[in-house]
Amino acid sequence: MDVEQRVHMIGGHGEESYANNSLVQGNVISSTKLIREKVITSLYSNTFPSSLTIADMGCSSGPNTLSVVSETIEIVEKICKERNHLSPKYIVYLNDLAGNDFNSVFKSLDNFKEKLSDEIKTEIGNCYFFGVPGSFYGRVFPDQNLHFVHSSFSLHWLSKVPEGLNNNKGAIYIQNTSPSNVIKAYYEQFQKDFSFFIKCRAEEIVEGGCMILTFLGRRGDDPSSKECCYIPELLATALNDMVLEGIIEEDKVNNFNIPNYYPCPSEVKFVVLNEGSFNMNHLEVSEVDLNVSINQSGYKFAQAMRAVFEPLLVSHFGETIIEDAFNRYQEILADRMTKEIIKSTYFTISLTRKSL
Amino acid sequence: MDVEQRVHMIGGHGEESYANNSLVQGNVISSTKLIREKVITSLYSNTFPSSLTIADMGCSSGPNTLSVVSETIEIVEKICKERNHLSPKYIVYLNDLAGNDFNSVFKSLDNFKEKLSDEIKTEIGNCYFFGVPGSFYGRVFPDQNLHFVHSSFSLHWLSKVPEGLNNNKGAIYIQNTSPSNVIKAYYEQFQKDFSFFIKCRAEEIVEGGCMILTFLGRRGDDPSSKECCYIPELLATALNDMVLEGIIEEDKVNNFNIPNYYPCPSEVKFVVLNEGSFNMNHLEVSEVDLNVSINQSGYKFAQAMRAVFEPLLVSHFGETIIEDAFNRYQEILADRMTKEIIKSTYFTISLTRKSL
Repeated sequence: MDVEQRVHMIGGHGEESYANNSLVQGNVISSTKLIREKVITSLYSNTFPSSLTIADMGCSSGPNTLSVVSETIEIVEKICKERNHLSPKYIVYLNDLAGNDFNSVFKSLDNFKEKLSDEIKTEIGNCYFFGVPGSFYGRVFPDQNLHFVHSSFSLHWLSKVPEGLNNNKGAIYIQNTSPSNVIKAYYEQFQKDFSFFIKCRAEEIVEGGCMILTFLGRRGDDPSSKECCYIPELLATALNDMVLEGIIEEDKVNNFNIPNYYPCPSEVKFVVLNEGSFNMNHLEVSEVDLNVSINQSGYKFAQAMRAVFEPLLVSHFGETIIEDAFNRYQEILADRMTKEIIKSTYFTISLTRKSL
Repeated sequence: MDVEQRVHMIGGHGEESYANNSLVQGNVISSTKLIREKVITSLYSNTFPSSLTIADMGCSSGPNTLSVVSETIEIVEKICKERNHLSPKYIVYLNDLAGNDFNSVFKSLDNFKEKLSDEIKTEIGNCYFFGVPGSFYGRVFPDQNLHFVHSSFSLHWLSKVPEGLNNNKGAIYIQNTSPSNVIKAYYEQFQKDFSFFIKCRAEEIVEGGCMILTFLGRRGDDPSSKECCYIPELLATALNDMVLEGIIEEDKVNNFNIPNYYPCPSEVKFVVLNEGSFNMNHLEVSEVDLNVSINQSGYKFAQAMRAVFEPLLVSHFGETIIEDAFNRYQEILADRMTKEIIKSTYFTISLTRKSL
């Protein structure tokens, strides 16, 4: 089974679901509102297209899925009212891997439209929604089709686990014990994937169209620094404890590596400049204080990680170890949170498609 | 809960799923292949569009969902090869109500594309798939967006149960005991819905674009004839038997009516002519011998009906009576099949969008 089939957030609305454990992602989306407002206002006011095409790449399911879409429509409707301009048609594409819980998203659309109409205090005009299954590391839209692309908390997912990580013993991501070939393999996979993402979007976005991308990363140059490696390292600690107790085989953990990469600013800039189709108008590095976001709760922290990583762990280790692993992870996280502030670093970058 | 939330085929791949109980629908799709071949060949050869946009309205989930799409692509690829023409891009829209199991459809797409590439013996070019949740009794696509619309076994579903059926006692559809106001209410709902369907598609389909619609109906003028009313009537018999045994309240059955209508040719023609946007090139009335299709099996027959009607019955009668009701229905069907041939009548109509 390849990564595309194994990577998806937990669907539905249960206690373990991503829908119920994506508060941090939601907070980050809120915190990047200003930059979106600026970009969308300029994008729409410069061209007044009769149809505005919006794509969310890696939309997942839950309360965050449609929040940027609704915000975008609200911004545009406000401009239309102020300038006494006819509303455009909205064409909304929701993209994620085929394993995403699109059924939940689709069932929520009627309520979403009603709520949105209430908020903007007029019936929204023609608003068309499309689910788009498929990896964004590949073409998913026809040529020059999109005005605004948004992606939040998705691009730190690689298209696959890098090859040649056999000697990354006891780790599930880069950590300070990782040999240099491991770091190199992760970085090269990121370069290849992110570059291909940019290239595909360049083909799909109209001239002057915009992208705002938010994803996890690091400030510093060292890819094995605590800043970006600590959270997976603590999960590795839980798994290694289970190896010591004979619950999991050592080889199983040695062969498990997560398909994520947390780049630094220069790595991100290099890819965008090198690909060449976009101007980078804005690059911001921020931190989210997870102790505060997650209300000092080891349980909530572990649940948030579980909603994201469980499907991947299940496919490698099987169902049986999951409960135990996340209980241990919860204890480790709760302990760490009493002693230090755990942070996540993330990027917000804004790009404009150059003239063709 | 409105009909849009209650009407959907049983999802997934279980024994009761529509995916496993849609053989008859699949046979009908096969039997209408020639007309599709003719329409698509003419449509494509007349204009050679660089992108070909195909929509399946009421796509459901299971083996039938993508069969017409794959056939359409095969026909076009054959023409391209014969005439040494570059393949178009394919834009495929799969539409159904939001309750449809889109997750299953999306998960099957990778296999579908692989199989299709094998069959046409070349890598298919750019082929973009979109899930489109929403009732086709309303706009679901932007203006003038579609080249070819297909709909199979969907348009006999009304947008809602007609109003004023209070005196349709002991029946769940029109039957020979139904008062004239019931027949009138069903017919008027059909007229309104089908007419609106045609109007919406007229706005969405490009000039010269085509629709092929297959749906259940009747040959004769009498809307209460056995030809179209027998199958629901036998389900009513099962439910009425349960009333007699005190398992279901009589009022519950009296208040249950299915949101289907099986029109005759003149009723279909009238709506299309009256709406005015399409030329009707072809109207064919056919029968499917269900005894043969379903291999003389009362069990398979009841399962096929269950995959279609169970969600509707559950929402009205609750879960508890379902097993019993379909067991009784199975016995009744098995008995009838030993004594007579049970047939379903269906239409295949082909329409072309007039010049604007």
